[in-house]
Amino acid sequence: VITGELADAFASKKEGICSIASSVDSVFARPYYLNVRGQFTRQIAESEASLYAASNWAASAAFVSQRVSDCIFVDLGSTTCDVIPIRDGKPAATTTDFERLRERELIYTGALRTNIATILRHVTLNGEKYRLASELFAIAADAHRVLGNISAEEYTCETPDAQPRDLQHCYRRIARVLLCDVDELGRKNARDVARQVERAQVDELAQALAFQARKHDLKAVVGAGLGEFLIAKAASKVRLECSLLSQQYSKTLSKVFPAFAVANLAHDAFQR
Amino acid sequence: VITGELADAFASKKEGICSIASSVDSVFARPYYLNVRGQFTRQIAESEASLYAASNWAASAAFVSQRVSDCIFVDLGSTTCDVIPIRDGKPAATTTDFERLRERELIYTGALRTNIATILRHVTLNGEKYRLASELFAIAADAHRVLGNISAEEYTCETPDAQPRDLQHCYRRIARVLLCDVDELGRKNARDVARQVERAQVDELAQALAFQARKHDLKAVVGAGLGEFLIAKAASKVRLECSLLSQQYSKTLSKVFPAFAVANLAHDAFQR
Repeated sequence: VITGELADAFASKKEGICSIASSVDSVFARPYYLNVRGQFTRQIAESEASLYAASNWAASAAFVSQRVSDCIFVDLGSTTCDVIPIRDGKPAATTTDFERLRERELIYTGALRTNIATILRHVTLNGEKYRLASELFAIAADAHRVLGNISAEEYTCETPDAQPRDLQHCYRRIARVLLCDVDELGRKNARDVARQVERAQVDELAQALAFQARKHDLKAVVGAGLGEFLIAKAASKVRLECSLLSQQYSKTLSKVFPAFAVANLAHDAFQR
Repeated sequence: VITGELADAFASKKEGICSIASSVDSVFARPYYLNVRGQFTRQIAESEASLYAASNWAASAAFVSQRVSDCIFVDLGSTTCDVIPIRDGKPAATTTDFERLRERELIYTGALRTNIATILRHVTLNGEKYRLASELFAIAADAHRVLGNISAEEYTCETPDAQPRDLQHCYRRIARVLLCDVDELGRKNARDVARQVERAQVDELAQALAFQARKHDLKAVVGAGLGEFLIAKAASKVRLECSLLSQQYSKTLSKVFPAFAVANLAHDAFQR
């Protein structure tokens, strides 16, 4: 499954897909590629390159749909959140990222890398509303770290200020979003900012879940990814059943679920 | 006037102010510093460092208040927008950035550097709502360039993808915020995204102007900075008179107004 085609280095998604596939072809003897329809192919025809863009969610959805015939599959990772309706044992999602942004199947918010200034424009502290600074000063990982939603080891991405990931620096980064030093803002207020970040992420996902549940008449959520804690809260908010893949498999597998899924799909397709 | 104290390199604003002042002291024989009260001092006492943080707006406000006794002075630059009420010939603004974010005296939005994903979370295209990608894919300069609000020469900041500043690349960056190639999104839709960026910036500023006009009983706006075009639209939206410093002085002076203002203040303070 290919997901790197949006990198700055490529002028277009097609160029990205073809360049990545060409590198893979030069290294591996017999690679297979999974497209967004859940099909494996030996090569990527240039005219079909778009079918291979951002296909990691398709692997997970194909795998889950073989096991749970009706559910909303949600994978909330470091950067994005896939919300895939599965109906009668088949993924019922659109295919391009552009369509997915429209259908609330792709919520571009994550548990680690997301710039807090893209999640909130204002926070309310002690009853007063404050505008945030629109820089890359703090990320979701800083908020979830001070709330105890993720462990120190789970803060795996780079920090926006190239400073350490310890709690003290997480607080410092959050304070900076209000152009404050930590002493000026106070740790209590910083945690309040973090709670508002979490609430905004949960609310957006909850709305998407309610939308998919209504659209496809679905009642259950299957969650994966290091942001499972946000999925559980969002599902609870709109009263949908929720099961988490970290409980069914393991936390490690849940976090790399597209890789686990594509390995299983390949095993089924080629080994029997 | 000091404005660099928020840089990643400094653990606190105090450290930033003291470090910058110490460098300046080592290079210049007899420097003077302007604080947020509009006073020049020969040195910065460590205990008063906070009075020198983000003081460039104070220079402009002190200068303008000597010429226009009652107005809302607005300086919209590459990154931020200062909204300073001037009443009875005196700046009536708060002093710290934290207070300024609360009082709508500092709107952290600019005409060039601002990440589009911090300005909008959704756009509406052909009646459909699309969620944006929360990356640093495109900036306000890309939007204002395709709208013709700024010239090629006025796009003076770095591009987020380290690619050229020409129109073709501006369109490409805007399309990317919707995870699209330009062909996929279409140039017409890209301009529509740009218009929604402009509208969001104008609306936010218009609300701040209306708030200040009410709070301090003010009726006129004096605008400066390369984002004067946004100030004029915002003032018009809330029916406030608006004069622009590019017309009174020149476009070049308007863009570097804090420097022009502090030079004039220093001339008045020390030359007579």
